[in-house]
Amino acid sequence: MNERLRKQMDFILEIDKQKEIMRQTYLADGSRKEGDAEHAWHMAVMALLLGEYAKEPVDTLHVVSLVLVHDLVEIDAGDTYAYDSAGNTTKKEREEKAASRIFGILPDDQAEQLRGLWEEFERMDTPESRFANALDKIQPILLNAASNGRSWSEHGVCEGQILRRNCRTPEGAPELWDYAKSLIDAFVEKGIIKKDGFSC
Amino acid sequence: MNERLRKQMDFILEIDKQKEIMRQTYLADGSRKEGDAEHAWHMAVMALLLGEYAKEPVDTLHVVSLVLVHDLVEIDAGDTYAYDSAGNTTKKEREEKAASRIFGILPDDQAEQLRGLWEEFERMDTPESRFANALDKIQPILLNAASNGRSWSEHGVCEGQILRRNCRTPEGAPELWDYAKSLIDAFVEKGIIKKDGFSC
Repeated sequence: MNERLRKQMDFILEIDKQKEIMRQTYLADGSRKEGDAEHAWHMAVMALLLGEYAKEPVDTLHVVSLVLVHDLVEIDAGDTYAYDSAGNTTKKEREEKAASRIFGILPDDQAEQLRGLWEEFERMDTPESRFANALDKIQPILLNAASNGRSWSEHGVCEGQILRRNCRTPEGAPELWDYAKSLIDAFVEKGIIKKDGFSC
Repeated sequence: MNERLRKQMDFILEIDKQKEIMRQTYLADGSRKEGDAEHAWHMAVMALLLGEYAKEPVDTLHVVSLVLVHDLVEIDAGDTYAYDSAGNTTKKEREEKAASRIFGILPDDQAEQLRGLWEEFERMDTPESRFANALDKIQPILLNAASNGRSWSEHGVCEGQILRRNCRTPEGAPELWDYAKSLIDAFVEKGIIKKDGFSC
């Protein structure tokens, strides 16, 4: 077995761990929380189907690649809940370290390629990364709404927290954001998301 | 909200159910069985990284699209275990019916596109579908080997059953098949896969 294939196989087995990183979002039927790998798969199918709503033209393979790998660093760094302010303070440092170890398992050219995708996703400086980030924000809103706002309600989330987190979502997919915003408004109306007057 | 976006959102929520379809393969660490959506995500990352091993040149977006949607019909038809001969007799009919309902939720053009991808995956008549099928066979072999052959052992699987199921795997990815075959050989040697003398 050649060295290149061995490194690729080591990486493919290593990322199996992503299936066990759990998010705070419940599945649409509320039966259990969603795993990171499931979230990435769901976003990848969304990327195949929703490209027409990207604010700027996007290359579909590029978007799909970004979403497939965007959470791999969580194998070491864990999932930091959107509204965990302490966790978010140390997130960047933990994730940088994770990226070096995990992508470093691959042959150099592919390590650089995947690390580049992760960094681009974080920087949001291309049409594809802005669209991928929008999908990353909108997918859990769809699931939260379908599960009657269970995760919002359990965490006592306020409208302002959600809107602040989504300030840049319209830069990726304005029409999809309008739809997601209408779901949020309905849950504010029902009192499941707490109203606190903030708007972007 | 326009009718097209409504159909797309209905489909995106519907396919959330794929996360709850469980396979017979265990995760690499043996802690639990793998879900369909996790399997599709894992294959999609493999498609990004392993295209160089495809027998014929492949378009990466095409392969990724095939693997992301290839199991959606299991939302209605369930996962049919590779070595369940009764289940495999009725599989085609159950899956055709499922494809009509599930892809039919989408706007017509996308329903046709995704159904086309699923049919192509099943027909194996393009370089991309042969490569995608090879990934679909090799991914569980990697996990089975990592989890000390737990699923092979629980189901009392014979070498011949695995080899018959993989007769066409070298048509998609010969070098990856050689590697997978070396893993199978090691588990036959250990007595975890039962030896029954069949070879392709």
